[in-house]
Amino acid sequence: MSNIEILGFVSAFLTTFSFLPQAIQVIKTRDTSSLSLAMYSIFTVGVASWMSYGFMIGDKAVIVANMITLIFSATILAIKLYNEFFNKNLHEKVSKHPV
Amino acid sequence: MSNIEILGFVSAFLTTFSFLPQAIQVIKTRDTSSLSLAMYSIFTVGVASWMSYGFMIGDKAVIVANMITLIFSATILAIKLYNEFFNKNLHEKVSKHPV
Repeated sequence: MSNIEILGFVSAFLTTFSFLPQAIQVIKTRDTSSLSLAMYSIFTVGVASWMSYGFMIGDKAVIVANMITLIFSATILAIKLYNEFFNKNLHEKVSKHPV
Repeated sequence: MSNIEILGFVSAFLTTFSFLPQAIQVIKTRDTSSLSLAMYSIFTVGVASWMSYGFMIGDKAVIVANMITLIFSATILAIKLYNEFFNKNLHEKVSKHPV
């Protein structure tokens, strides 16, 4: 593996798994008050389209990295949507536990 | 431009600019309480390393997309760090204005 390939792998690993602590924090605290609904809506669509792009060019790394990120961002988005539309009050009272 | 190239461009545009509404919301409300410090620390390093990867392979699109995302995520990270270490109380009182 060349240095450039290693850097590419490390970059993909970091940007993919960086959403894991945010997903854990949101699942634990149910607090999404300072998360932007617009961000997670647009980002989730963007990651899904990167995954389709990966399928179209037949690149497993692009597919797998974006599939993992999609799981995390879709989880965060689902809880944000639940709080926004079904649970307007709960997330105000939830105590905050930063990860 | 082929369909595949269009999909790649759209994916890059969405994942890059999705951080703009989150940056605007954080700048306006100064509330970062439900944002994960771990996420934005790891993500910002990851995007910076994608940008270096872009320089190493000489790909302008990778460089520009990650440079823009880096500006947004570094802004969010800076305000989160400020709130965590210098301003522990303020961000609890700040009213929330979702974008």
